[in-house]
Amino acid sequence: MSDAKTFDLSCGLPIENHARIKLAHGGGGRAMARLIEEVFIAAFDNPLLREGHDGAVLDLPRGRSVLTTDSFVVRPLFFPGGDIGSLAINGTVNDLAMCGAKPLYLTASFILEEGLETEILRRVVRSMRTAADAAGVAIVTGDTKVVERGRGDGIYINTAGVGCIERDMSVAPQRIAAGDAILLNGDIGRHGMAVMGAREALAFTTPIESDCASLWHTVDALLSANIDVHCLRDATRGGLSAVLNELAQASGLQFDIVEGDIPVSARVRGACEVLGLDAMQVACEGRFVALVPESAAERALAIMKSRDDAARIIGRATAGEPGLVTLHTLIGGRRILDMPAGELLPRIC
Amino acid sequence: MSDAKTFDLSCGLPIENHARIKLAHGGGGRAMARLIEEVFIAAFDNPLLREGHDGAVLDLPRGRSVLTTDSFVVRPLFFPGGDIGSLAINGTVNDLAMCGAKPLYLTASFILEEGLETEILRRVVRSMRTAADAAGVAIVTGDTKVVERGRGDGIYINTAGVGCIERDMSVAPQRIAAGDAILLNGDIGRHGMAVMGAREALAFTTPIESDCASLWHTVDALLSANIDVHCLRDATRGGLSAVLNELAQASGLQFDIVEGDIPVSARVRGACEVLGLDAMQVACEGRFVALVPESAAERALAIMKSRDDAARIIGRATAGEPGLVTLHTLIGGRRILDMPAGELLPRIC
Repeated sequence: MSDAKTFDLSCGLPIENHARIKLAHGGGGRAMARLIEEVFIAAFDNPLLREGHDGAVLDLPRGRSVLTTDSFVVRPLFFPGGDIGSLAINGTVNDLAMCGAKPLYLTASFILEEGLETEILRRVVRSMRTAADAAGVAIVTGDTKVVERGRGDGIYINTAGVGCIERDMSVAPQRIAAGDAILLNGDIGRHGMAVMGAREALAFTTPIESDCASLWHTVDALLSANIDVHCLRDATRGGLSAVLNELAQASGLQFDIVEGDIPVSARVRGACEVLGLDAMQVACEGRFVALVPESAAERALAIMKSRDDAARIIGRATAGEPGLVTLHTLIGGRRILDMPAGELLPRIC
Repeated sequence: MSDAKTFDLSCGLPIENHARIKLAHGGGGRAMARLIEEVFIAAFDNPLLREGHDGAVLDLPRGRSVLTTDSFVVRPLFFPGGDIGSLAINGTVNDLAMCGAKPLYLTASFILEEGLETEILRRVVRSMRTAADAAGVAIVTGDTKVVERGRGDGIYINTAGVGCIERDMSVAPQRIAAGDAILLNGDIGRHGMAVMGAREALAFTTPIESDCASLWHTVDALLSANIDVHCLRDATRGGLSAVLNELAQASGLQFDIVEGDIPVSARVRGACEVLGLDAMQVACEGRFVALVPESAAERALAIMKSRDDAARIIGRATAGEPGLVTLHTLIGGRRILDMPAGELLPRIC
């Protein structure tokens, strides 16, 4: 194989023809050691990772800790507003934030497909570092496996995360009470439509950008303002529909939602119409609902709005029928907002 | 498709023809909720998992914690002495144990291939529960993704683990000192040869069984006996060769190993000869080296031997050439034991 530079369309970067992932990179020998040193440690560098032991020894602050995990299989690897790397960081950071925990430490585990251009891996890993820095977390340990061509899809990433609950409070579905206001921190459906657009090369006039972002700083602002946050949940797979149904079921309450108060951008609305999708079921990666006592709702909204003007109070939890989510529609009717059945958009995260 | 029972050769169990994983099982809707309830929670059941939140809230004991992660892509999924499920538990339990940490909590994240028989998943998940019980850990949170046919290989599993260091001591490569004895807790190479045998349907007269097992109880016995363990490392990918080279490099010492003191079963030795493999480079999943001060070597050996009579003192760390591993051979010579270059046996774990 020639050493000449070529141009790889899948990531738009000049790469060396020969620099591809081989099975040997997962074998535990010299090739793997070099990959870890030159790609992973080069990007994630921190003292804990440098220890080079089987795990990272952490001095966790006193108090309760939270542990979470997520695997990421998004296709394509790069999309407007993000990539599998930023998604893998923010997804796990947000799972911690939704438990009211300050994200501290992440693991990163890769399943690479033989033949992957190493430069694509480098780009993803750099994006992980940037997202980790933005969220204030360190990647402290990891793992690499390589599977044969046709047994993977470029890169799959798992991140697990540890965070700490700094305040003597509980943020959980069990705390939702009748009368709680339901807040949403911005417009929905952008992540799913951004990935769809990139995947199907849809001719959106202007690309829709993913909302992929860390939610911790917004959550921290709510908690720091002493708002008695009852529950938080990010609207990922299954979209806002799935989240509202899950929380109504877990709390044994009815949720009454006002459709007109749910922010959906004109571009997402248009793309959903063309594709026959319901924006309520499309995944977000930077949107969450917060359930807070009615008395704190306006203060919470002001904090959310200071970060995203599209934030809204979208409804209330009531003592009606346990697990039911009703949608007061724009034309004055009322319908049941059901749990999505299955896969609307496969491999969205 | 008919509902008739069929016999699936890949796991030897009668299964329903129609019970297969679909993309919908990863979509965040009702199908995924059912899979989680009926397969994962049914097997892993514990109060933390039942919370059904985005992460598990843990009350960690005071002291230092250890965080680790590993992805598992072993092929085939089932092999003599274990399967991808027991491997995924023991692999991460052992990473914690090698840091001197008592394993406490595990996450479990699955990347499933569309079309996988649900019964195979159930069987793997039950095996995870059995291995977790044996190691004394709980699986407290998880994640499921589904990829299209031909983008995975049945089941990939990631486990991350949290453990706690109960004693005021450090177990790390930096603590290895000249004069330390190097101990090995049993015969090497069985895991790799068991997987190879199952994969290639090699006509071993008697199947070689994997050594896959939790190492925590042996480590705990060493620590509980107040042995000043300097370093621990399990011999997984790259086998004993890789581990000895990594630790010699990390400690800046020379390791002198006596070949005749390394236990290799006759069956592994025979299979390696037939296949042209070096048992020193074949992966284990229940073998580790311990570096302890010479004065504690015999006591440590007695503890290891009480669990496996094949345990041995295999050599010493010396002040010779930093990073060099020498092997005193059976015929009286001396050779350098090199780091394996790449992939001997792909997808062994």
